[in-house]
Amino acid sequence: MELQNLSSKINSINGKFIEQAQQRLDNLTKPQGSLGRLEEFAKKLIAITENPMPEIDKKAVFTFAGDHGVAEEGVSAFPKEVTRQMVFNFLNGGAGINVLARHAGTEVVVVDIGVDYEFKDTKNLISKKIVRGTKNMRKGPEMTKDEAIKCKNVRLELANEYAGRAYKIFGAGDMGIANTTPSSAIAAILTGKHVEAVTGRGTGITDTSWKNKVQVIKDAISINKPDHSDPIDVLSKLGGSEIGGIAGLVLGAAANRIPVVVDGFISTAGALIAYVIEPKTKDYMFAAHNSQEIGHKAMLEKIGLKPILDLNLRLGEGTGAALAIMIIEAGLKIYKEMATFEEAAVATKTSND
Amino acid sequence: MELQNLSSKINSINGKFIEQAQQRLDNLTKPQGSLGRLEEFAKKLIAITENPMPEIDKKAVFTFAGDHGVAEEGVSAFPKEVTRQMVFNFLNGGAGINVLARHAGTEVVVVDIGVDYEFKDTKNLISKKIVRGTKNMRKGPEMTKDEAIKCKNVRLELANEYAGRAYKIFGAGDMGIANTTPSSAIAAILTGKHVEAVTGRGTGITDTSWKNKVQVIKDAISINKPDHSDPIDVLSKLGGSEIGGIAGLVLGAAANRIPVVVDGFISTAGALIAYVIEPKTKDYMFAAHNSQEIGHKAMLEKIGLKPILDLNLRLGEGTGAALAIMIIEAGLKIYKEMATFEEAAVATKTSND
Repeated sequence: MELQNLSSKINSINGKFIEQAQQRLDNLTKPQGSLGRLEEFAKKLIAITENPMPEIDKKAVFTFAGDHGVAEEGVSAFPKEVTRQMVFNFLNGGAGINVLARHAGTEVVVVDIGVDYEFKDTKNLISKKIVRGTKNMRKGPEMTKDEAIKCKNVRLELANEYAGRAYKIFGAGDMGIANTTPSSAIAAILTGKHVEAVTGRGTGITDTSWKNKVQVIKDAISINKPDHSDPIDVLSKLGGSEIGGIAGLVLGAAANRIPVVVDGFISTAGALIAYVIEPKTKDYMFAAHNSQEIGHKAMLEKIGLKPILDLNLRLGEGTGAALAIMIIEAGLKIYKEMATFEEAAVATKTSND
Repeated sequence: MELQNLSSKINSINGKFIEQAQQRLDNLTKPQGSLGRLEEFAKKLIAITENPMPEIDKKAVFTFAGDHGVAEEGVSAFPKEVTRQMVFNFLNGGAGINVLARHAGTEVVVVDIGVDYEFKDTKNLISKKIVRGTKNMRKGPEMTKDEAIKCKNVRLELANEYAGRAYKIFGAGDMGIANTTPSSAIAAILTGKHVEAVTGRGTGITDTSWKNKVQVIKDAISINKPDHSDPIDVLSKLGGSEIGGIAGLVLGAAANRIPVVVDGFISTAGALIAYVIEPKTKDYMFAAHNSQEIGHKAMLEKIGLKPILDLNLRLGEGTGAALAIMIIEAGLKIYKEMATFEEAAVATKTSND
């Protein structure tokens, strides 16, 4: 789908639904506003779905896996083959995202968008491979412009497909050894911050490795000269396939009026690409948590999102999104299931206050 | 039970169990420490239970209801009869705590410890009434010393009973119109802060009402002269029956090696009383959330607890505790259900990092 056509399908949420939801919330047996952000989540869900009693019974966290050429620059504490090994771990149900998604009653959809490995017919793996790993961004673009657009479109298709199958909320997650490096590069370009201010320790690297990582990002920016006003240019030159996929998922969610819970640092880099393509996507996003990666905050501020959880997570995979979905769902249940003052015969505020 | 005997039954947690849990966590298929506070919660649960594979299948949030004589001073936005009306709402399943406890798979145990109303044989209400509302603390002690001790003992008995029935985690919640007033008074005395610095808006009062509330608390402190080194004196002079009950629940949980999730402002006032009676109780407490009530932070700092959630909640009832239990449970599931590097055949860190 052309970007112009897509953008025309994405509409801002309508304040009328927020007001209607607020009226109901204010009649429930609690002091007004006393359930804080739970009430905010309920209102946003109602405005997104334009349904006064929405269901979020079918939930899916999409974990997109891709490899990164830049892994050869020693920017990660883990070897590159861990990406495919973790894909098998996801499929076997043993990873963090599997445990937390089970806890949250959420399905995990594992998508191979750019792993440097041929999985053949692996059961339950959604194969949407665009590249067999990206190229090393220190030496040139990670992907061609065409590949970047394809990555974005993959998840757009997925969003449409899962919307058609009546899924009611999406989570966006990632797996890709070395992928905090392209995410930091994207953060630097799209927020305008210094590379040092948005580059963290990823899976846990040493001081020396961190300095190297910063230099790799600076070199990549210098050789590629990404255009900050052209998000597809930024994505193709610095971004990973999974980051492009997340951008597409967010765009597709917004076009289908489905709420999308953005996990942590890498997912937010993808969400930021989607936001720069079409700022109205913000209305459909929830920020799952405040990642320990230092560049995360700047990207969330750029989009204008406040994270739901702050638990020092830095795993990715969609783990924060799975937890946040439970909290968002709690907000919706408050809205739908609590008794009103009238139903419960409870007195409201005294007149002197 | 005498306080001396009780204290002898409460032991600090043993660091050996923390270390053993850490070893397992470090072998799971994730970068070390990358699940942040979820890992902290798992370790604490294992050390509390001294069980390498604990279950928290049976969960109960105790919502203690009591009335406050000080309500007649116009310190709340709601009339006093709302306390009993909300008890009926709890029993009918229509309140915020009912909704969130169902979401979290947690039972709600409603306890009448001091409501100014005779409930007779109301189904599912645990009747442990010590007082029919407390007295107005602006005019003298809320309770006699004997009543304060009884309140604490009620929940001690409840803790023992539910421990015996194999409940594995407790939440502590409250209901009592005007009860932010005694909680702020307790906070001021036990943290040493100024009354203004620990007095908030409760259910949502105006500026004028807030100034009156501050004056009421100052008058109550001035007339009662509570001894900050004697928590039972503080409880009897300033505290509510439900606050005493929460203190007892925390003490009883610690004596039974059961984790207890302390809800928000009022529950933390109770937990602080328990902590001053026996500081080792801290090892058994989880702070559910960061309440919007301004005095909450000072009390949590005094105990040394960091809240799990920060969602601008200020409802009480145990609502934050129910949500936090879901997050704590997520941490335990990570610890128990994730695959190790060996099980999943995933490579560990490369040697150069």
